[in-house]
This record gives sequence, C-alpha cells and structure tokens, in this order.
Amino acid sequence: MITLKTKQRIVAKAIKKQKESAGSHSPSILALANQFPNVKIKVDACFLSNPYASKLFFKCLQQDFKKQNKFQDLIQYYPSQNAIIAQLVAKHLDISPQNIFLGNGAIEVIQAVIHNFVRKKIIVNIPTFSSYYEFAKEHIKVVYHQLDKQNNFTLDIEKYLKFVKQERPDTVVIINPNNPDGSYLKFQDMAYLIKQLKDVDNVIVDESFIHFAREKDERIKSTLKLINEFDNLIVIKSMSKDFGIAGIRAGYGVMSTAKVNHLLKNGYLWNLSGLAEYFFRTYIQDDFQKMYEKARVKYIDITQTFNNKLSKIDGLNVYPSQGNFVLVELTEGSTAFDCFNKLLLKHGIYTRNCSDKIGLEGEFLRIASRTKKENKKIIKSVKDLLSA
Amino acid sequence: MITLKTKQRIVAKAIKKQKESAGSHSPSILALANQFPNVKIKVDACFLSNPYASKLFFKCLQQDFKKQNKFQDLIQYYPSQNAIIAQLVAKHLDISPQNIFLGNGAIEVIQAVIHNFVRKKIIVNIPTFSSYYEFAKEHIKVVYHQLDKQNNFTLDIEKYLKFVKQERPDTVVIINPNNPDGSYLKFQDMAYLIKQLKDVDNVIVDESFIHFAREKDERIKSTLKLINEFDNLIVIKSMSKDFGIAGIRAGYGVMSTAKVNHLLKNGYLWNLSGLAEYFFRTYIQDDFQKMYEKARVKYIDITQTFNNKLSKIDGLNVYPSQGNFVLVELTEGSTAFDCFNKLLLKHGIYTRNCSDKIGLEGEFLRIASRTKKENKKIIKSVKDLLSA
Repeated sequence: MITLKTKQRIVAKAIKKQKESAGSHSPSILALANQFPNVKIKVDACFLSNPYASKLFFKCLQQDFKKQNKFQDLIQYYPSQNAIIAQLVAKHLDISPQNIFLGNGAIEVIQAVIHNFVRKKIIVNIPTFSSYYEFAKEHIKVVYHQLDKQNNFTLDIEKYLKFVKQERPDTVVIINPNNPDGSYLKFQDMAYLIKQLKDVDNVIVDESFIHFAREKDERIKSTLKLINEFDNLIVIKSMSKDFGIAGIRAGYGVMSTAKVNHLLKNGYLWNLSGLAEYFFRTYIQDDFQKMYEKARVKYIDITQTFNNKLSKIDGLNVYPSQGNFVLVELTEGSTAFDCFNKLLLKHGIYTRNCSDKIGLEGEFLRIASRTKKENKKIIKSVKDLLSA
Repeated sequence: MITLKTKQRIVAKAIKKQKESAGSHSPSILALANQFPNVKIKVDACFLSNPYASKLFFKCLQQDFKKQNKFQDLIQYYPSQNAIIAQLVAKHLDISPQNIFLGNGAIEVIQAVIHNFVRKKIIVNIPTFSSYYEFAKEHIKVVYHQLDKQNNFTLDIEKYLKFVKQERPDTVVIINPNNPDGSYLKFQDMAYLIKQLKDVDNVIVDESFIHFAREKDERIKSTLKLINEFDNLIVIKSMSKDFGIAGIRAGYGVMSTAKVNHLLKNGYLWNLSGLAEYFFRTYIQDDFQKMYEKARVKYIDITQTFNNKLSKIDGLNVYPSQGNFVLVELTEGSTAFDCFNKLLLKHGIYTRNCSDKIGLEGEFLRIASRTKKENKKIIKSVKDLLSA
C-alpha cells in the first residue's frame, strides 16, 4: 500500500487545488513549477508527445532560423490565411483542399465542429477527452456510452451500433486510439463502423493518437481518405502529440466541403500563427517526413517495450494501448491520489491521476511513454513504489 | 496623370488577381514575394505596425531565448489557459480579470463577439475594417452608416445617435481611430457617445489603433475602464499594430463578466500559443513598458511629420488621421489602381489600394507610416509620381 507522509500530504492537497482550478485538464509542468518550485519534476509522463519527433522538429527549426530575419519575419508579418495553408497540407495528405480546415490546435477544430454542426444530441464514449462533452452548448443533449472495462475499454461495435440506433443522435464521437485508455479499432473495423453510421449527420473520428498505432506494418491507418465516400465523416487530428509542439497550436479537421465552407464563410481568417504555418510548411517536406518516420517507428518500439514492462509489475492492471500512453489500474488497494503524489514527490515523475474522468470506476493513472531513458526511470520508480 | 507601361500593366493585373483570391485583405509581402519574385518591395506601407516597437520586442525576445531551452519549452509544452493569462493582463490594465477575454489575434475576439452576441441587427460605419460585416451570420441584418467624406469621415455624434435611435440595432461598432481613414473621436466624445448608447445591447469599440492617437498629452485614451460603468461595452484591441507582431496572433477584448463567461464556458481553452503567452508576459513588465513608451511616442512624432509632408503634395487630398496610416485621395485624375501599381513596380512601395472598400467614393490609397527613413522614401516616390 502506498501511503503519503504528512509533509507530502500537505503538498499533495495544494497540488490538487491547482489542478481543480485548471478544470478537466492537468496544469503543465511549467505552471506546476511556477507554483511549487520545490517540486522537482524529472519526467513529465503526463504530457502526451513523441520526444524524438519534438527534438527533430526543433533541430530543423533552429537550423532554419539561422537564416537572417526568418524568425523575425514569422513574428512580424501576417501568416497566410487558412485556405492557403490548407492547400499545402491537403496535397500532402492526398485529399482535396476543399475538405480540410486548419485549426489553432485540434481543440479549435473540436470547438468549431461541436458549436457549428451538433444540432440536438451527441453520443460520447466514456472514459474520454472531456472537451467533447464540455464544449456542447446548453441545448445539446450529451448521451454517454460506457466503454466496458471487462473488454479493456475497446468499443464493442455491434453493441454500439445498436445503442446509436436506439438513441438516434445527430452526432457521434469515436477517438481512435481512445484517450485515456489507448484502446484501438483496426482500420477495417473503423471502415465498417463508419459505413454503418451513414445515417448519423456527423461522425467525428478523432485520430490524434493514430500515429502511434501499429497494425501489421508501420503504415498509418487513418480513415481520412474515407471522406471521399462519406460526407458525414469528420476526422480530427492534433499535431501536438506526434510532434511535441503543443505550444505552437496546430491541428486540422477533414470534413465535407460544405462544412469547411460553412466554417470559413464568416471566420477563421488568420487562425494559424506564423510559427504554426512554419510547422506545416516543414511537416509536408519529403526530407522532414523521412526523418520523422524514423522517429515515429523508433518511438512506437520504445513505447511497446515500455507497456510490456509495466504490465509485468505486480499490483498493476495495465490496459492494452495503441496510444503513446497506458492506463494503469492499482489493484493492491492504494488510491490513485496517493500513487500520483508519491510518484511526483518522491520520484519526480508527473503522471495523470484519472480520478476526475467520468466513466472510470477504480483507481487509475495514465502514464505517458517518454524517451527510452525516461521510461526506464518510470518503470524503476513504479516498481519501487509498489514493492515498498 | 499616372499611367502604367504595358509590361507594368500585365504584372499589375496578375497582382490584382492574387489580391482578389485573398478576399478583402491584402496579401502579405511574403505571399506577394512568393508569387512575384521579380517585384522588389523596398517599403511595406500596407502593413500597419510600429516598426520601432517591433524591433524592441524582437530584441527582448532574442535576449530571453538565449536562455537554455526557453524557446524549446514554449514550443513543446501547452501554453497556459485563457483565464490564467487574462489575470496577468487584467492586472496590467487595472481592470478585473473577469472582464477580459484573450484572443488568438483581435480577429478571434471579433469573430467570437459577432457570432455569439449579435442577435439580429448590427450598425457598421463605412468605410471600415471588413470583418465586422463579413463575419455576421446569415440571419443578421447589417446596416451601413456612411461616414461623411466632407466631414473627413469623422463620426457626427448627434447624427449617428439619431440614426441608431431610428434603426434600433442590438449591436453597433465604432472603430477609434477608424480604419482606413484614421478619423478620431476624443475620449470625452467617446465617453459621451457610450453613455448615450446605453440601450444598445452591444457597443463594440475597436481600439486597435488607439496607441497612435494623441490628445493634449501622450497618455493613451482608452475607454476600456468604462466597462465598470457600462455593461454593454465591448472594447477590442489588436496587439499586432502597436507591437508589429501580426505573426504571433495576440489580442484581447474587454467586456462584461457575463460575456467573458459565456465565451469561456464551452471553448477557447488553449487559444493563445506559447509565443503569444510569452508576448503578453513580456508586455506587462514595467521595464518593457518603459522602453515601449519611448518607441511609441517617437513613432507618433514620426507619423505626424509624415502626414504633414504628405498633405503638402499637390494632386493628393490627405485626410486627417490619428492612426499610423493616412487615407489619401488622388485628385489629379489618376486611378488608385495605376497609382498603387506604379508605386509598387517603379518604387518598390507597397500600399493599400482601397478600391474594394465599401463606402469610399473616389480614388483612394491607404499609406502606412513606417520608419523615418522609409517615410522619406515614400514621400519622395509619391512626389516623383505626381510631378511626372
């Protein structure tokens, strides 16, 4: 059993208070460091990003910004308008530019879609990323569909379709791989599911973690090209996770031309910053893609090793994940609160305490995979904690 | 009379086409340079920013970013949430944090306000910044109130109040100083006007250029503190103009707590980037403010000298401006199209051809004030053009 010392408990309570004031999202380690300078964070295993891709992008940026005035120009001048950058990214994704809407982070795309296209009723699978229900306006009915813990939180397609048929929502949301558990539906299953949902007005598929999933080979199994077949499909993609660039705010949504036009008709003029435009212009370069692909596959390997090692630790139930994180359940009687704080205050490891996630019964932490070295430290600390 | 050579006319037509594809806004000089590498721009007098403040901010940033990992952290990690940064900025502005909404550029604030609070009818003074009518949703009636050229486009308060009483809109917009003409209402007049408009649900005052206006002394005459008296007031502020940071996307709106809460209730979670957060954190520092104030006053002096010199050139009618730009009317029979292109193609000076501005009858260019040296070049070129 993990127990906190009196001193640790006092700090733990103060941290909890800060977390609560940040809403359903964890404070960044910068915010944490500001308020608790004595808490030394060694590994940020709350933050979901590929550190190798992050390093690669920053290296490219530093190289580029050596050119005189490059950075100053990006700061000084207006960035290109949404539709201009969309043309470049669409070409890279091999879809029509009329099907892409670029966002100031995926969160802006989520907000735009939920505010503009959901009419009356939305089905959200839980546990989930909270913005999908928090952003729903007052007159919208949010219906929760509980993912089955016994089924490792994997969506049971036939049961789900029956539920949808019963509830008759205008919008459904499927996050694949799902956050916070990492459960994953293969491309063939997703394609079948989307086909069966043809009578739902908006089928939102959030693929923010799809770059970390692996089927038979390394290819990314996005459903975004199904937009050519299914007009009701909306694929949402964050770039913060793959590339570790949460501070830049870059994401996109793939959706019908009518929906893109609806959004761009009266808004979203310069919603990408100069740095976000620079990111997308770098991202679509063949040279960068080649280097990125290596960083991606390397990180998947490291992440799968990490998951395997974690799952062998006694006192933990580790749910199978195809994200770059794992949901772990404490099975030896400790609370998530105590475990989260002990990991932070004793070992300097910042994880995500999932106690506030609706649809999660039990004591859960979400732990992100980081670099090989950091993952080793996480494993060692968790072992140390649970064997104490 | 300004006339284009055949070769110039061909390029001019191609540039016009690019402009048209960019909607109501001019392409940035970067976009122009991309498409027309042969057009050498020496002075960007289309872009409305204080180049001295821009230089100052970039210098501070370069100094700061020498610190190890500072820039990388801003790129990598999530920025603070809207309400956290609002607290800092509100303290600097000496208003309540509950009255401030930070935007991904002022344009996001304009979009949020127009989409969320305008119910049926909005009055917009013309000529104006086009987004105020372009962002209005389909069911909104936009009523134009023509500013009188004979009155130098200055709002005639009593006539305007009569017009508002007649039309009974739920929303009015006043840009002060106005864009594109720079006409200005003094603080006392604005305070009177806002008081008289107490029955209008939303009184939007866009003060994006107020840092360039001068009354008896140098103090900035913002109406933002009137928020404590008038619940219907919405003051919108771009930071791109004062600080030359259009690429960062930073602005804010001051409005009632109910309105701020309405916006933050289901959206705008991380709408500022790491760099925008960095800008605001720099902006509120006393040291920075002191240096900025010098750059601001210096630039106002330079701008007023520029306006005076321009107004003495024959063939031009220069409207009095308290913005960092002047609206000039060609009075010797040339078209704005020919003058704009000749200035660009012969002299490398990029201005704003106002032919697409509704509410402007005649041949108008808007010319921005730049550095002292650049302004000299503009004056020389305009003289050269009109005496040819």
